[in-house]
Amino acid sequence: MKLVSFVMGQQPAFGAVVGDRVHVLSGSRWPTLTEALADPALARADLSGTVEVPLEDIRYAPVVPEPGAIFCVGMNYANHVQEMGRPMPEKPAIFMRLARSQVAHGEALILPRNSDKFDFEGELAVVIGKPGRHISEENALDHVAGYACYNDGSVRDFQRHTIQFTAGKNFPGTGAFGPWLVTPDEFGRIEDHGVTTRLNGEVVQHSSFTDLIFGVPSLIAYMSSFSPLRTGDVIITGTPGGVGVARQPPLFMKAGDRVEVEIDGIGVLANTVKAEPGA
Amino acid sequence: MKLVSFVMGQQPAFGAVVGDRVHVLSGSRWPTLTEALADPALARADLSGTVEVPLEDIRYAPVVPEPGAIFCVGMNYANHVQEMGRPMPEKPAIFMRLARSQVAHGEALILPRNSDKFDFEGELAVVIGKPGRHISEENALDHVAGYACYNDGSVRDFQRHTIQFTAGKNFPGTGAFGPWLVTPDEFGRIEDHGVTTRLNGEVVQHSSFTDLIFGVPSLIAYMSSFSPLRTGDVIITGTPGGVGVARQPPLFMKAGDRVEVEIDGIGVLANTVKAEPGA
Repeated sequence: MKLVSFVMGQQPAFGAVVGDRVHVLSGSRWPTLTEALADPALARADLSGTVEVPLEDIRYAPVVPEPGAIFCVGMNYANHVQEMGRPMPEKPAIFMRLARSQVAHGEALILPRNSDKFDFEGELAVVIGKPGRHISEENALDHVAGYACYNDGSVRDFQRHTIQFTAGKNFPGTGAFGPWLVTPDEFGRIEDHGVTTRLNGEVVQHSSFTDLIFGVPSLIAYMSSFSPLRTGDVIITGTPGGVGVARQPPLFMKAGDRVEVEIDGIGVLANTVKAEPGA
Repeated sequence: MKLVSFVMGQQPAFGAVVGDRVHVLSGSRWPTLTEALADPALARADLSGTVEVPLEDIRYAPVVPEPGAIFCVGMNYANHVQEMGRPMPEKPAIFMRLARSQVAHGEALILPRNSDKFDFEGELAVVIGKPGRHISEENALDHVAGYACYNDGSVRDFQRHTIQFTAGKNFPGTGAFGPWLVTPDEFGRIEDHGVTTRLNGEVVQHSSFTDLIFGVPSLIAYMSSFSPLRTGDVIITGTPGGVGVARQPPLFMKAGDRVEVEIDGIGVLANTVKAEPGA
């Protein structure tokens, strides 16, 4: 199933995408998105009798609009580690993003007024379904509600102010999350997929998920070794080589650009870039 | 005013501490703690006619039980930078802690089952009242609802797995926040105060806030340059020298220990340490 979050009359809503229609599921069997994500039967939801709206009419919300935690992984593809001039990691490098930094599919990414080094990072996002702590790698995928595309937009000068990445990863309007999640039964094996990032139609990043240094089971096991994972938490698994800051000359996003993150088996997360007011 | 959060019949509550009594304020003029923190009139709240409970009877909650963001500052005292062998920072080094990692005054800190390197860090916590973005240093203190004690308990081996501190700073039961906040009118000048940490009665850290590399106005201005600050957000301002990991031999916390963080003008945040079940 493809589960989409959207806004219906100012209220958060969610539904199943079938072709060009959305079957509205909020307020039905599951009062909230969290309850839907926590239900192992989500993928087999009965859509008969649901209200339908055309997909093209919805105003998208981030796949999980208010995650309790967004864990981000740095340096998780060898070619990205090399282009950034960092040592190969022995453990996943984790930083966090706030929900308030997110935007939805189709919403504008915000070019900060106090930086001109706004970079793209196409990534696979994993949404937690079943909560847990001290989860083993063997059982890790049982805790996944689904997969989505993420653009972990990065403000490179702020990211490099110190060794902590936090400042460069939390500007408002920099974390695009969409267009929907695909449940594991439909997505299949992670290793059979990959991510492509396009800036103004040109491919700037492309990698198979076989190239992840720490795969999804390993990441879930590691996160849960230091924090309880809750339903709706998001793990952003890292970006492959090709980011703008590592190019010669550097390639940063500017107002009017269009950036797309595509994962085969999920779809395309597309956003334009606009300048922060007051810039 | 001293504003304390506590639990009353399973429900979150808050009130003003006056001597050995708590004047219950929740459900009165301000339905929620967030509304109270956002009100510039908080410090002048009329306590007449409020329900009173004995301070010794309350079950404390973290001063802000569910902050939208907990921004933590690393390396913000010169003697701590030196003992950790880090370069002197040119900008504040920011990482984040999740609300789910917090405990209240009087609650047990949790010694992780997968580490024996659990360290104390006594700190000044700043609670945001008035929200804002791109706040100037000159106006920064207008955004403070109050000050409290924080023990930014750190799992040192996980903190050092990579250059990102996140993993070592988010174990559940490691961030003690209390006992209450003191509003700025009562606290006075930050530079006139300091923090002392005691482990089993022995002073292990002691510093004046004049020794902060980045003072509170500078921190608020910096945080708000990359993230909107919201009411109830918390900034933990960093810890002075004396942490356990930098001692010879190292001094880590163990089950049964008692740790106190005292800030003159606020009070004493006290916690015992207990082992995580299953350890």
